[in-house]
Amino acid sequence: MHVADRLQQSIDRTGSIAVVGLDPRPGLIPPALRREALARHGDTRLAVAWAFTAFNRGLLRAVAGACAAVKPQVACYEAYGTPGLQALEDTLSEAARLGVPVIVDGKRNDIGSTAEHYAQAWLGAAPGLGGGVLPAGARGDWLTVNAYLGSDGVKPFLGGAGGIFVLVKTSNPGSGEFQGLKLADGFANMEAMAQLVATWGATRLGACGLNDVGAVVGATWPAEAQRLRQLMPDSVFLVPGYGAQGGSAADALAGRRRDGRGVVVNSSRAIIGAWEKAKAEDWAAAARAALDAMNADLGKAR
Amino acid sequence: MHVADRLQQSIDRTGSIAVVGLDPRPGLIPPALRREALARHGDTRLAVAWAFTAFNRGLLRAVAGACAAVKPQVACYEAYGTPGLQALEDTLSEAARLGVPVIVDGKRNDIGSTAEHYAQAWLGAAPGLGGGVLPAGARGDWLTVNAYLGSDGVKPFLGGAGGIFVLVKTSNPGSGEFQGLKLADGFANMEAMAQLVATWGATRLGACGLNDVGAVVGATWPAEAQRLRQLMPDSVFLVPGYGAQGGSAADALAGRRRDGRGVVVNSSRAIIGAWEKAKAEDWAAAARAALDAMNADLGKAR
Repeated sequence: MHVADRLQQSIDRTGSIAVVGLDPRPGLIPPALRREALARHGDTRLAVAWAFTAFNRGLLRAVAGACAAVKPQVACYEAYGTPGLQALEDTLSEAARLGVPVIVDGKRNDIGSTAEHYAQAWLGAAPGLGGGVLPAGARGDWLTVNAYLGSDGVKPFLGGAGGIFVLVKTSNPGSGEFQGLKLADGFANMEAMAQLVATWGATRLGACGLNDVGAVVGATWPAEAQRLRQLMPDSVFLVPGYGAQGGSAADALAGRRRDGRGVVVNSSRAIIGAWEKAKAEDWAAAARAALDAMNADLGKAR
Repeated sequence: MHVADRLQQSIDRTGSIAVVGLDPRPGLIPPALRREALARHGDTRLAVAWAFTAFNRGLLRAVAGACAAVKPQVACYEAYGTPGLQALEDTLSEAARLGVPVIVDGKRNDIGSTAEHYAQAWLGAAPGLGGGVLPAGARGDWLTVNAYLGSDGVKPFLGGAGGIFVLVKTSNPGSGEFQGLKLADGFANMEAMAQLVATWGATRLGACGLNDVGAVVGATWPAEAQRLRQLMPDSVFLVPGYGAQGGSAADALAGRRRDGRGVVVNSSRAIIGAWEKAKAEDWAAAARAALDAMNADLGKAR
């Protein structure tokens, strides 16, 4: 199935456009898990990886069926080397088992054959020494991509079944510093990037009317999101910056299409760290309650 | 020691500004190594990782003392998941043991705390669950960074002892598509990026007169390199695109400073795959001979 159709199907089935950011950090690990990890492995990378895996498994079981997708942030795992990457591979296997679409947030980028290796790592399979095909250990449905290098750095990601989200207008306060620079033709850099995204996705529509070259557009920039939608009519917007970073539900939805489609909204800490605020022992239930509240908030604004 | 001084010291000691790209791919593994890897591990990711590690160890011993640095391309390893990352960690340990500076080519990028995790992964250490500090398994001296996100995405990389190379003008044929767009103020995007690089590095000079915020500037764009040097007087240029991609020694050196400093030139396939062309059984000696030829070529142009 076309990856955009699979995402739309997940939205239709769950009634949710929420994406749960699986961005574990030591400070977000609930006390009981932390104690068990330290007892098993001491204060090591293995302990962190064990805790991340156990935490994500519990979170995935709690949120599956109530969110459109999950989005692991690769940096959180990469900081712990091979054990960290193993935790990510185990997390993605669990997501696949539960049928939850996965957006790998790696912001990968390179040119030609090197970009292909990143696609092999996260969306496909790599060649073996003996001529075989070696499936990725941690395969996702989508990968975030930084397109500063131009088409040479983007097309290699579009050779397989997976989709990409290209960084267009990121949620950070200083994103305008480069993305907002005015071009000689009157457009801003983010608009030039949006035009490229539309070109790359033009012939790649799924049955749902959306294509597999999406865009990252922060909830913190609703006016820009509306403008960018005009330039990328058939792209899914992956929207970070809802909640903690200041974007409201209405802000997060600003870029949706007239048919109501084309936007998924990420939340990480407010969901996976909900147990902290709620002082809840059942951290998985706290995450689910926070997701339910997010779904209700987005539902009101839809 | 300041990371720019360490690199300059390596250049002074070896008399070389060459960077050897450690970008192993199954097709570049010499037949004897390939046979041994398949015999040990079958056609698996473990076999690839074993071959990459053995290949890199031999290459490192052959080129240490005759190059300024080595530059592993993370994508090549990432394509093989956790075993691939283990091969990279082992490669970096060997480079450290031999005293060869390492530029990790990951083109990483994200905002705020997430960028910090990438810095922890490649340039530093990450926090443990028990309050300890967990050193990275594959630490480099420098990391390549994509700065489309602006200062928010760059400053977190500058908190430790490592340096960065920011993508400014990449070597690919289509790099102008975005990097060459003309801005309303008359500059091109790559020049705006160069101005940001100069700002980020301004207060970060080493004793050698160069700072730790370098720039990636392709050898395929010599006129642009000269112009970019004016905008980034104290940045080290990491120059890909020499040789196979079409840049000559003079092209590769176009961006050097008047004092002759500030440029390191990468070559990957022409060195690590030299055994193919030479039909040499001693692949490490073939790599060293190719590196010696590159050093001579660059020496003539210097």
